[in-house]
Amino acid sequence: MINSVLETVIQQVRPLARQGRVATYIPELGKQDPDLLGIAMASVQGEVWTAGDWDRKFTMQSISKVVSLGLAMVEIGEERVFSRVGVDPTADPFNSIMRLEMVAPHRPQNPLINAGAIVTLSLLPHGEARERFEAVRDLARRLTGSQDLNLDEAVYLSEKETSDRNRSLAYFMRSVGVLEGDIEDILDSYFMQCSLSVNARDLAVMGATLASGGVNPFTGERVLPSKVCRVLRALMATCGLYDGSGEFAVRVGVPAKSGVGGGIVASVPMRYGIGVFGPALDPKGNSLGGIAMLEKLSQELSLRVL
Amino acid sequence: MINSVLETVIQQVRPLARQGRVATYIPELGKQDPDLLGIAMASVQGEVWTAGDWDRKFTMQSISKVVSLGLAMVEIGEERVFSRVGVDPTADPFNSIMRLEMVAPHRPQNPLINAGAIVTLSLLPHGEARERFEAVRDLARRLTGSQDLNLDEAVYLSEKETSDRNRSLAYFMRSVGVLEGDIEDILDSYFMQCSLSVNARDLAVMGATLASGGVNPFTGERVLPSKVCRVLRALMATCGLYDGSGEFAVRVGVPAKSGVGGGIVASVPMRYGIGVFGPALDPKGNSLGGIAMLEKLSQELSLRVL
Amino acid sequence: MINSVLETVIQQVRPLARQGRVATYIPELGKQDPDLLGIAMASVQGEVWTAGDWDRKFTMQSISKVVSLGLAMVEIGEERVFSRVGVDPTADPFNSIMRLEMVAPHRPQNPLINAGAIVTLSLLPHGEARERFEAVRDLARRLTGSQDLNLDEAVYLSEKETSDRNRSLAYFMRSVGVLEGDIEDILDSYFMQCSLSVNARDLAVMGATLASGGVNPFTGERVLPSKVCRVLRALMATCGLYDGSGEFAVRVGVPAKSGVGGGIVASVPMRYGIGVFGPALDPKGNSLGGIAMLEKLSQELSLRVL
Amino acid sequence: MINSVLETVIQQVRPLARQGRVATYIPELGKQDPDLLGIAMASVQGEVWTAGDWDRKFTMQSISKVVSLGLAMVEIGEERVFSRVGVDPTADPFNSIMRLEMVAPHRPQNPLINAGAIVTLSLLPHGEARERFEAVRDLARRLTGSQDLNLDEAVYLSEKETSDRNRSLAYFMRSVGVLEGDIEDILDSYFMQCSLSVNARDLAVMGATLASGGVNPFTGERVLPSKVCRVLRALMATCGLYDGSGEFAVRVGVPAKSGVGGGIVASVPMRYGIGVFGPALDPKGNSLGGIAMLEKLSQELSLRVL
Repeated sequence: MINSVLETVIQQVRPLARQGRVATYIPELGKQDPDLLGIAMASVQGEVWTAGDWDRKFTMQSISKVVSLGLAMVEIGEERVFSRVGVDPTADPFNSIMRLEMVAPHRPQNPLINAGAIVTLSLLPHGEARERFEAVRDLARRLTGSQDLNLDEAVYLSEKETSDRNRSLAYFMRSVGVLEGDIEDILDSYFMQCSLSVNARDLAVMGATLASGGVNPFTGERVLPSKVCRVLRALMATCGLYDGSGEFAVRVGVPAKSGVGGGIVASVPMRYGIGVFGPALDPKGNSLGGIAMLEKLSQELSLRVL
Repeated sequence: MINSVLETVIQQVRPLARQGRVATYIPELGKQDPDLLGIAMASVQGEVWTAGDWDRKFTMQSISKVVSLGLAMVEIGEERVFSRVGVDPTADPFNSIMRLEMVAPHRPQNPLINAGAIVTLSLLPHGEARERFEAVRDLARRLTGSQDLNLDEAVYLSEKETSDRNRSLAYFMRSVGVLEGDIEDILDSYFMQCSLSVNARDLAVMGATLASGGVNPFTGERVLPSKVCRVLRALMATCGLYDGSGEFAVRVGVPAKSGVGGGIVASVPMRYGIGVFGPALDPKGNSLGGIAMLEKLSQELSLRVL
Repeated sequence: MINSVLETVIQQVRPLARQGRVATYIPELGKQDPDLLGIAMASVQGEVWTAGDWDRKFTMQSISKVVSLGLAMVEIGEERVFSRVGVDPTADPFNSIMRLEMVAPHRPQNPLINAGAIVTLSLLPHGEARERFEAVRDLARRLTGSQDLNLDEAVYLSEKETSDRNRSLAYFMRSVGVLEGDIEDILDSYFMQCSLSVNARDLAVMGATLASGGVNPFTGERVLPSKVCRVLRALMATCGLYDGSGEFAVRVGVPAKSGVGGGIVASVPMRYGIGVFGPALDPKGNSLGGIAMLEKLSQELSLRVL
Repeated sequence: MINSVLETVIQQVRPLARQGRVATYIPELGKQDPDLLGIAMASVQGEVWTAGDWDRKFTMQSISKVVSLGLAMVEIGEERVFSRVGVDPTADPFNSIMRLEMVAPHRPQNPLINAGAIVTLSLLPHGEARERFEAVRDLARRLTGSQDLNLDEAVYLSEKETSDRNRSLAYFMRSVGVLEGDIEDILDSYFMQCSLSVNARDLAVMGATLASGGVNPFTGERVLPSKVCRVLRALMATCGLYDGSGEFAVRVGVPAKSGVGGGIVASVPMRYGIGVFGPALDPKGNSLGGIAMLEKLSQELSLRVL
């Protein structure tokens, strides 16, 4: 039954999804086919359903911020992380620098905007970019249960070349003392984690792992403490879709995190994880078709928690 | 059993609650006893539990914004309301004017900050301040099931005299075209709705009505359409505690709305409404003891939805 | 000779001046004939030259801020004035409220933007709006040597009705403690001083009085101390044309103050005062023809001091 | 006579000057002796007077922005420069990034703040950092008439290492399209020009050259067109001391430009150039003793032009 719901959802959403536009500020992302649409859903009991282009690979982009934040909370503790990064939703766009200057103590508002994610990464107790990335990648593999999670080299290099705004954010934060260390090295690991390649099914399993309180329903491994999952879900619910988070809460009503690669991971506590993929974005940088699919699915299966 | 949980929660929270400070910018609010603590919980099946100073009256303040927003959605439609007010969470304080100037089209970010609530009120199709207020009060009575919901004249007059910031917001909004009509009259109804007097039990029933999808479990009346309740709960979850909304989502994880009178209404979809009262506030203007009680109760009874 | 220079300047500027637009945010100002152009020049030795519509009356608008600031410095002392208002040029538009919120201690940047002028007026030790206004008007009469300086009732009433932004500024400033007193009364005197009616010759004499260090070259009266004139000229040079002050310094290079009524007063220290009038404004609210006339005159007669 | 005025001025200012603090954000600057005070004055007729530590070398820092702006106007034309950089005074600190984000089209307000100076440098039609720097250095040599103007290597390396804020500004500007080219190379030439070593006498001659309309009174060479000097003096008058420009206009009333190395160059049109040096700064980054010396000198010799 759920399989046919997923199929229907894709059909209904397709005309709308075409009105979005693929991200172009990272040239490599601009090459994606805007017509792709995929969806997968996984239960905390270990069932999984898929439809459309669910097995197409795309890069996690901002979805990876959930992974590195989870890692940081485990490795250095919730308290230390949130002494450096806030938990406030924000109406600023994802790459805003203004508020960092304006509001002392110049702390990024939350770990799901770029500034906050970069600070979070910098706190990881690993030597260099590659090690930091591998720690994030390993956690991502455990959350998704997929060993086949790798760096998309082309996207990584493309990001690295066109990341003036992120460089500006990082240098600014170091100038006001909120970020320490080797900027290029920290950014390098940030670009790598953004370039981790997944498919919609991977995201569905990751969402289900977060929904279950940290146990991957497919591998049975406890991947994260349930307390960490609660924090991640709360931040996803309030800040997960940049300045589109409020509208998403109204329309869909479940914790989720989007990325400009076109993916969104959603997590319905104690019930389901969902992964959607549609590279054509709305003006706020969220998958246009992805949001629409989640909205329909939320109605159809009564997934709202809000 | 729940009664004893409520009692315990109050005992545990009391020492912390004393560290807060009553609101002083409205002189009349400054007269409240900072040691008061009350809590009430109501189920969507029509049960109710209470503890502490649950029957002390206090003014709704910003909690009334939920009522007037619900009224506006019913009377003029969700679409018209949200063409004038956004649904974006914001990291600005509740009375910020800056973003209104900075970001065209100068629309308030959401209906739960002061600017947004004033615009929402102005959209109601009622003649004058008193009528507008009475429509809000009547909806509040139906949501709480209490006929004993009246204006606290002393607080109302105190607010009216010390409302420079709200006047500034309103005149600013009219100057940029986002607000129309007689400013003093609109503000008058705003001060009146803020001065509606309730107790914790009233808020618990109101929360339960929102939780049930709009049917008051005690009177059996359908007070609001379920779609309106979904919007209200989503906005409460993302913007309900001003710039403390993110932290509240992490710590408590349920939709809620606070007021500087010391009250908080929480709504656990399909399960419970909770009303808490503690006039000593944290620096963001939320009840210090109220948040702590909700956090403990959320853990104790597994109320989190996020 | 100078008379013919003035005539030539008007002829040359006329085609450009027509591209401006009369102020419309005050309805009464919108009724002005955009084709009017007048100019007058007065020397500190007591000579005067005129051309074009030099005897057409218009309202001082922001030019009156120079008068009330001079008055405040005389009546309560430079130090007290500048403990409440800064002397910083600003790149914000004349009616910006943002910076007031953003930058503690919420002091207006300088006395020539609206917020600063309103605070300055509030500091005058006079009982009520009418008295405050009459003190400003009397100083204006002495600066211009004209007894025929009166309130334009129509403009005054029009301003009073359409002053949402100024009301917003004033209430905001009172809410943060930078402004005290009866807001409506203070604003009333502000609207009155803005509505003082002058002609280009009046402004030329006023400019010459400031240029001479405070002695009106026509009446021989010492109207202001030379130290006060120095402060006024310095503020005119850096902040006199709102966010067009920098460009004006480059193009014209003399201290000046503009008003949205279409007038500009310029003051060439030790040499001349100049009054220009052209109600068609540029996008920053300065007289398009007025600036162009001053630029040509500055070149022709080597008036630059910068 | 003027020599004794200069000596007196130094004596009078010494106690105040000691209350300032040397710049510390560039470590090498922090090593300066805060008690140094030097002054020099040069007339457009080719006279020169000196007192105190007038021959101590210090780095130009922001004073070099005047040189590179002059160079850019000569090499690519005033129009092209000001299509990329504004001429607006600003109340923001010298290294502010906020306004760049906030106000489309994201153009730096003026060429004398860091962002504007970096853009100006990037427009120079020279191949690489070293060539760009040498062109600026050569113009500085001709303005000062000193062949002994060289790079202070220690300061240059220190700046290069501690320039997070400037890097942030530059990457931000490239991300919004206002800056093009190789960021590290552009910044390198910026750090080099800031590290040009001069003494107070050099600045006095530079000021006299600008005052004369571009002819160096000592070498007799026409170094800059008079039109370019007019623009430079106008910008110095309105934006020359960062957010202290307004107060400087009130207190001193002559065009001037400061640098965090402790120097200030002033230019009294048609009359004098003045160079002052005092490395102890006020909170806005301007030489505390330097401003005080210029204020006293301006009074003593009636130098005000405003």
